[in-house]
Amino acid sequence: MPQISERFKNIPVSSIRKLSPLVAPLKAQGIKIYHLNIGDPDVKTPEVMLEPLKNWQENPIRYAQAAGEPAFIQALLKYYHQLGFDFLKSNDILATIGGSEAMVMAFLAVAEVDDEILVFEPFYSNYNVGAAVSGVKLVSVTTSINNGFHLPPVGDIEAKITPRTKAILFSNPCNPTGTVYTKEEINVLVELAKKHNLFLISDEVYREYAFDNKVPVSLLSYISELPDRIIVLDSLSKRYSLCGARLGVLITLNESLMQGAIKIAQSRLSGGLIDQVIGAQLTKVSASYISAVQQEYQSRRDVLYNELVKIPGVTAYKPEGAFYVMVSLPIKDSDDFCFWFLTEFHPNNETVMLAPGSGFYTTAGMGKNEVRIAYVLKEQDLKRAVEIIKLGLEEYNK
Amino acid sequence: MPQISERFKNIPVSSIRKLSPLVAPLKAQGIKIYHLNIGDPDVKTPEVMLEPLKNWQENPIRYAQAAGEPAFIQALLKYYHQLGFDFLKSNDILATIGGSEAMVMAFLAVAEVDDEILVFEPFYSNYNVGAAVSGVKLVSVTTSINNGFHLPPVGDIEAKITPRTKAILFSNPCNPTGTVYTKEEINVLVELAKKHNLFLISDEVYREYAFDNKVPVSLLSYISELPDRIIVLDSLSKRYSLCGARLGVLITLNESLMQGAIKIAQSRLSGGLIDQVIGAQLTKVSASYISAVQQEYQSRRDVLYNELVKIPGVTAYKPEGAFYVMVSLPIKDSDDFCFWFLTEFHPNNETVMLAPGSGFYTTAGMGKNEVRIAYVLKEQDLKRAVEIIKLGLEEYNK
Repeated sequence: MPQISERFKNIPVSSIRKLSPLVAPLKAQGIKIYHLNIGDPDVKTPEVMLEPLKNWQENPIRYAQAAGEPAFIQALLKYYHQLGFDFLKSNDILATIGGSEAMVMAFLAVAEVDDEILVFEPFYSNYNVGAAVSGVKLVSVTTSINNGFHLPPVGDIEAKITPRTKAILFSNPCNPTGTVYTKEEINVLVELAKKHNLFLISDEVYREYAFDNKVPVSLLSYISELPDRIIVLDSLSKRYSLCGARLGVLITLNESLMQGAIKIAQSRLSGGLIDQVIGAQLTKVSASYISAVQQEYQSRRDVLYNELVKIPGVTAYKPEGAFYVMVSLPIKDSDDFCFWFLTEFHPNNETVMLAPGSGFYTTAGMGKNEVRIAYVLKEQDLKRAVEIIKLGLEEYNK
Repeated sequence: MPQISERFKNIPVSSIRKLSPLVAPLKAQGIKIYHLNIGDPDVKTPEVMLEPLKNWQENPIRYAQAAGEPAFIQALLKYYHQLGFDFLKSNDILATIGGSEAMVMAFLAVAEVDDEILVFEPFYSNYNVGAAVSGVKLVSVTTSINNGFHLPPVGDIEAKITPRTKAILFSNPCNPTGTVYTKEEINVLVELAKKHNLFLISDEVYREYAFDNKVPVSLLSYISELPDRIIVLDSLSKRYSLCGARLGVLITLNESLMQGAIKIAQSRLSGGLIDQVIGAQLTKVSASYISAVQQEYQSRRDVLYNELVKIPGVTAYKPEGAFYVMVSLPIKDSDDFCFWFLTEFHPNNETVMLAPGSGFYTTAGMGKNEVRIAYVLKEQDLKRAVEIIKLGLEEYNK
């Protein structure tokens, strides 16, 4: 019998999804699960974006243009211009099948097989699969809950740079930590990129979600300093609650990089036509939609944080953006703890699904006492979920 | 300035898409282009598949299940059961983002970097990009227009098998040749797979399109002989004119292979939710839809073939399936010829877009006098397109 490839066997399991097979049997038993494991918001998609469905006329469902439907690209361009990045032209923007495709394209573009990309752990665990698929090695610089997962001293970052390092990858606001990097921190990364001749890859899918009047610094504001070294990954999934419409974006002014990305886009022929028609509606979404969602997440953040820190032994910090928090719990093995909720602990036929912390680290042993919580549920549900976590900790630690 | 990776620079251009940048300027000049270069059918999508759009209620547009929405998977299962493959279970089927994603998954699954996959040239040119992205080497066994691109003697195939060969990949009915392999030919491949311990990857997206009462042999009919070595790639794009709904399928009974594919699927979180709701309607499409489309393509095939062979110096064979034909023209460089139509030859403000043959071969120099024609236009348009080709040959060869 032929063997599947080692690289395929070694693909890591998505930390966010690895408990998924337990869900259906639980639901069949009538057990309610509070999904804190994945950033699939319950916030409504703007109705104006769904209008094209009701009025759909086009038939057949033809291929979309490989690099993105012109109307979608123009809408994106308008959006970025309104953010102040008026240097962007339509050729600098590629519509991808979710941010995930943009990520894989970026990895392939900057690194040969076995080259290295620096990341700050804990980091979005699906970067691991993108790296495995593209044969790239992610090298982690560890950040700490003690300073809200902000960047460590520059020397700690520089110590991880080798001749094989090709890029620094970060998400800002950060998934899974909710950290919003300061301008000074981004400056440090920009200087490192200049000094060591690296690409910078900034995942900005949570751009709109920063709290307490913080404004995340887009890497696009550094374009004049690093015109050829900046890659921005973006997505409409979180911004407009469009997770199931696969609408990602790759932005770069590096023309040879864009040419390569377009060749990949052409080879898969097309992104979703209907999804892109929905995406093209983005300029019709009112500013009040975004500000209301921001406010909603900030309130949820406050509820979640306030409830969590009441639990004895729980350490958290107030996330500054996105809709996640990494929480330290008084346990030794969060993989086991998260599994236990789904398999054993169902008070009043309810339980919680959490993302085990270890999946967001590459350093062995890190994150074993941490979980990531996505606060994508209504406040009342969040409160109940935290109660279940509290009860669970009491029971689990008996 | 940091360099993009060599592997990214070396991604081949899709033969089908490489002339695309010339299209928009031509259209802006009011020139009509007959698109024979790409299999984007003008046949209508069944209305029953578009009904969910008009009645769309779900909000937010949540993530679809990573391995496929249950309703879509169940509909696929019913479809394959009706084809007679009633051994298939839902776990054997993964919904992918187009057939393209299934292809890349298959390449990663069977081969390490620099391992080899055998293909029969001319082959679907996007396999080249999938191979480049996954670091796999495609090794070509050349087939000939003289026998309608059927398989060469087994010795010619076996001569290309090395210790690094991990799989044989073929499409049946074949894109770009329209060849439908006989049962005897598939038997040969199955025996080779057994003898040399190889995977077989069968791309069956044109399954429904075989003419003159031919019935393509699905690799699934060999499942009892090779339960762990069969991978079938499929797609709804052509079957239901749903190219812009990214609905692909990976089928395998190899459990460890499926587990790896699911890990990749989880890492990109979701395919398109709306597309999959459309896809789930497939069991509601009447049998008469498919038979009418079959008949339509067969008639187009006849018109195209009959008109083409009237042109002096043109060699073609009658394609047995799919909706493509590779045509030999009395020219030396079809890349130049195809470019010339778009840039210089516009009789009555019309021209044709063809796919140059060389892109479907890996052997240097092959296909330079061939083009691929997709007969996805109405008969009248096909006739006019062939007239333009005839006029073009006269002018080009003056």
